[in-house]
Amino acid sequence: MTQLRIPGPTPLPDKVIKAMTKPMINHRGITFIKIINDVTEKIKRVYQTKNDVFLLTGSGTGGLEAAIVNVISPGDKVLSVAGGAFADRFANIARRFGADVTVLAYDWGKAADPDAVRQELKQNPSIKAVLVTHNETSTGVTNPLEEISKAVKEFDKLLIVDAVSSMSCLNIPTDAWHCDIVVSGSQKGWMAPPGMAMLSVSEAAWKAHAKATAPRFYWDFTEAKNYLAKGQTPWTPAVSTVYALDVSLDMLLEEGLSNVFARHALIGKTTREGIKSLDLTLFPDEKFASNTVTAVAASGGLDPKLVVKLMRDEHGIELAGGQTKLDGKIFRIGHLGWVKVEEIKEVIAALKKVLPKAGFRRG
Amino acid sequence: MTQLRIPGPTPLPDKVIKAMTKPMINHRGITFIKIINDVTEKIKRVYQTKNDVFLLTGSGTGGLEAAIVNVISPGDKVLSVAGGAFADRFANIARRFGADVTVLAYDWGKAADPDAVRQELKQNPSIKAVLVTHNETSTGVTNPLEEISKAVKEFDKLLIVDAVSSMSCLNIPTDAWHCDIVVSGSQKGWMAPPGMAMLSVSEAAWKAHAKATAPRFYWDFTEAKNYLAKGQTPWTPAVSTVYALDVSLDMLLEEGLSNVFARHALIGKTTREGIKSLDLTLFPDEKFASNTVTAVAASGGLDPKLVVKLMRDEHGIELAGGQTKLDGKIFRIGHLGWVKVEEIKEVIAALKKVLPKAGFRRG
Repeated sequence: MTQLRIPGPTPLPDKVIKAMTKPMINHRGITFIKIINDVTEKIKRVYQTKNDVFLLTGSGTGGLEAAIVNVISPGDKVLSVAGGAFADRFANIARRFGADVTVLAYDWGKAADPDAVRQELKQNPSIKAVLVTHNETSTGVTNPLEEISKAVKEFDKLLIVDAVSSMSCLNIPTDAWHCDIVVSGSQKGWMAPPGMAMLSVSEAAWKAHAKATAPRFYWDFTEAKNYLAKGQTPWTPAVSTVYALDVSLDMLLEEGLSNVFARHALIGKTTREGIKSLDLTLFPDEKFASNTVTAVAASGGLDPKLVVKLMRDEHGIELAGGQTKLDGKIFRIGHLGWVKVEEIKEVIAALKKVLPKAGFRRG
Repeated sequence: MTQLRIPGPTPLPDKVIKAMTKPMINHRGITFIKIINDVTEKIKRVYQTKNDVFLLTGSGTGGLEAAIVNVISPGDKVLSVAGGAFADRFANIARRFGADVTVLAYDWGKAADPDAVRQELKQNPSIKAVLVTHNETSTGVTNPLEEISKAVKEFDKLLIVDAVSSMSCLNIPTDAWHCDIVVSGSQKGWMAPPGMAMLSVSEAAWKAHAKATAPRFYWDFTEAKNYLAKGQTPWTPAVSTVYALDVSLDMLLEEGLSNVFARHALIGKTTREGIKSLDLTLFPDEKFASNTVTAVAASGGLDPKLVVKLMRDEHGIELAGGQTKLDGKIFRIGHLGWVKVEEIKEVIAALKKVLPKAGFRRG
């Protein structure tokens, strides 16, 4: 039995797979209009928001591009709070669309410091928006978004959040934390296949949108809003993925958001305890270790690429390696979405067998 | 039994639906790399091209945006050959990204005139690229792409083709017709669900790409090419839709391209003959009537919106209405992808019953 333990795509529950076998439908007809409206309302509950929420056909990166092009004008000053590959990507998108990006870098594996954000915003009053990667999938770090938000909102800046690999797994009360745009992706904690991004848009983000001159068409929020008023998307959506989300959202809401968050917290802890019980070293600062993905450092002669290979070949467990500058330096275990504690225990048991073959010598 | 007879999304064969139930997978792992490479090669066969072909996660409109942002710089002069809602959309995308668009308009329901294109290019030597909607889904017209291409290539301009609703149904030999970028979408003739766009990129388009300064990130061809060299997509693709395409492409290639084209030609003819047998009026110039979608004009007191409603409510057949300025003036029958002559005969038989109730009085 294969276990997909990468940080997305994630395994699909049987009910979700079954939902995808429903026949194609008129994406502008009454039946699908009801589905779009239902799915949007259910996403709002997970986001804990009264803001507008839109479904976009694209990957999470498409959602990040949408967040940028809708509120940024060329020359706008943007602060990128960056300590990983996905924060770098987010900053690059902003640069490509003409933003003047200041990078507030923190060490990969550490978390961002809200006070450093505060200082930066004090020194650079012309900054318009702050880009934060809530859950840095590349390092296994969850940033202290609530505290970062406080710093950002002291200066009344736009807060644009990449929550691609955290929303629906970790508690992110979008409105209570004053997040202006929050982006996620269907193939992460949502227990659906890849193909749709979702995002929320606050009143302040709408005001920025009205003045923003970055060119946009496909991702345009105004088009999304106008069509959603009719229960539609501007362009043909990934119908099967919407079917899947309709069911997976019901599962999430039936389990209850607080239970979903508690399950991910328990699973994150179980993973970290398991890793430490093997004398392996967590890559991130444990205080900020993510409950959706665990990054394990190469230590004691460990070859992370060989771990990934042996786990796949000998145990049918698919783990992830490191990205960009962490390539060959870490391996990662995804534990978001449809995941149980027992599965993590299987992963740890398999790792125990694999480690000696992958060069690891216990301290 | 419901019949989905809109010009996309289109019905899915059982084998394709079954393919979508395969478990999620590492989108950068060896198994999926083989699928991406296979699917790309099979799409090339349908495109009849040796050019690069990329799969993009997005709708057909996303593919059109990709075509624009990769080869256009702000201020570039672009000729839009336009006689329908989708050509207007294509031109709007170009405008949004800063192109200086000259519109060569032709009447909705007529086809574009290759000689008019020739005259326009003679008079405007600074035009860089020509946008052509091969199959104008909004009017049911198929433009004479081969002849238009000859005109465009006499002046050595880039030819960018929207073949969203024609590729894989109608013969479009991309290379023989010197098309520089050709865009299609998975939910049309490809017998797959919506969610992926595909496009081809010629040598000349690559040269334009190298100089083009329109901002881009998500749709960037260079990223797509670099990742495809590893059998991957830059961002997480719609895995289930790729599974579906893998199987639907096998079905298309097993049937044989010439048989697929002949089937669509027969079905288009059957539809038009059926419409005329009811004394209804084809909206487009029959000489250029599309073999993937038939538009029927409101005549003899016919209320097209009521036709669509009654066909759905009383016969379970989902037709499409008119778009933008054709709203309330036509109805449309989609017949692309997985469609048989018998199904069209059912549609015509149902129409016969519905017409009197929808206000139609024969000649």
